[in-house]
Amino acid sequence: MNCPFCLKTEADFFMETSRFAAIYNLAPIVPGHSLIIPKQHIESLFDLPDEAFDEMMQFSRQIMKFLCDYFHTDAFDWAIQEKPPAGQSVAHLHLHLIPRYENDLPLPGDWYVQMVASEKQQIDIHTRARLSEEALKQMTERLKQAAAAYFTQNQTNIT
Amino acid sequence: MNCPFCLKTEADFFMETSRFAAIYNLAPIVPGHSLIIPKQHIESLFDLPDEAFDEMMQFSRQIMKFLCDYFHTDAFDWAIQEKPPAGQSVAHLHLHLIPRYENDLPLPGDWYVQMVASEKQQIDIHTRARLSEEALKQMTERLKQAAAAYFTQNQTNIT
Ligand SMILES: [Zn+2]
Ligand SMILES: [Zn+2]
Repeated sequence: MNCPFCLKTEADFFMETSRFAAIYNLAPIVPGHSLIIPKQHIESLFDLPDEAFDEMMQFSRQIMKFLCDYFHTDAFDWAIQEKPPAGQSVAHLHLHLIPRYENDLPLPGDWYVQMVASEKQQIDIHTRARLSEEALKQMTERLKQAAAAYFTQNQTNIT
Repeated sequence: MNCPFCLKTEADFFMETSRFAAIYNLAPIVPGHSLIIPKQHIESLFDLPDEAFDEMMQFSRQIMKFLCDYFHTDAFDWAIQEKPPAGQSVAHLHLHLIPRYENDLPLPGDWYVQMVASEKQQIDIHTRARLSEEALKQMTERLKQAAAAYFTQNQTNIT
């Protein structure tokens, strides 16, 4: 299997539910750029049964709230691209969670251009814009601890 | 109240649930560009109770599927911008549903640039890129009829 998201294991997750995982983006466009993915290889948003879809969305909202808290902002982009004409490079369903700040990117459209580039970097191992294995591991560990503390404090039930 | 989405009435909805409405975008960036909005003035994704959030997401997915069918594509962007640093101009929660096609826009980032411009056009009455009142009304009517037929055929329960 050539799917980079299917290669992710528990060590790569900073939070998870039974069917979904939150991972830090290998090529983040801004600090905090994370992804929610189904643990199984599911391609389309329409392939999720209703119950799993609810779980994915509720989990995504909780993680988005946590990321806003951790990265000290209340602004974010929340986006799914489905199929290549929409900018999807990895054919495994994923929701982008992107904390935003005033003037964090040179131009407003850079967000999307960089997100598309970031997707390509998941599959192109020769690009240099990716985090090192060590940096990604450290970030994941930091978020894992912060998320555990956050969800304990806020008594939110992760499904 | 100066909120353009609070001014929308049933005549503007092409489909609705008890708490949410699907409307055609006043300044669509591509054919089919629609929005899901809460009928009440709610600003943040985090202000929705869990149950209402589930309703919004399920409704959004059903309408996205309908739009893909109606506009003959399986590619789409599904996006929420929260707060101005993320590109939100209208401070009333809304989810963009955008059917996409190969090469529908000159550059990949144009999607976002145009979406931000489209948001500004909701509040700037002097811009010329908006649909005429008549064109918007016709499109809404066409989608209303098509959606009614689609959801009857597909026996999907709109909550
Ligand atoms: Zn996969
Ligand atoms: Zn409003």
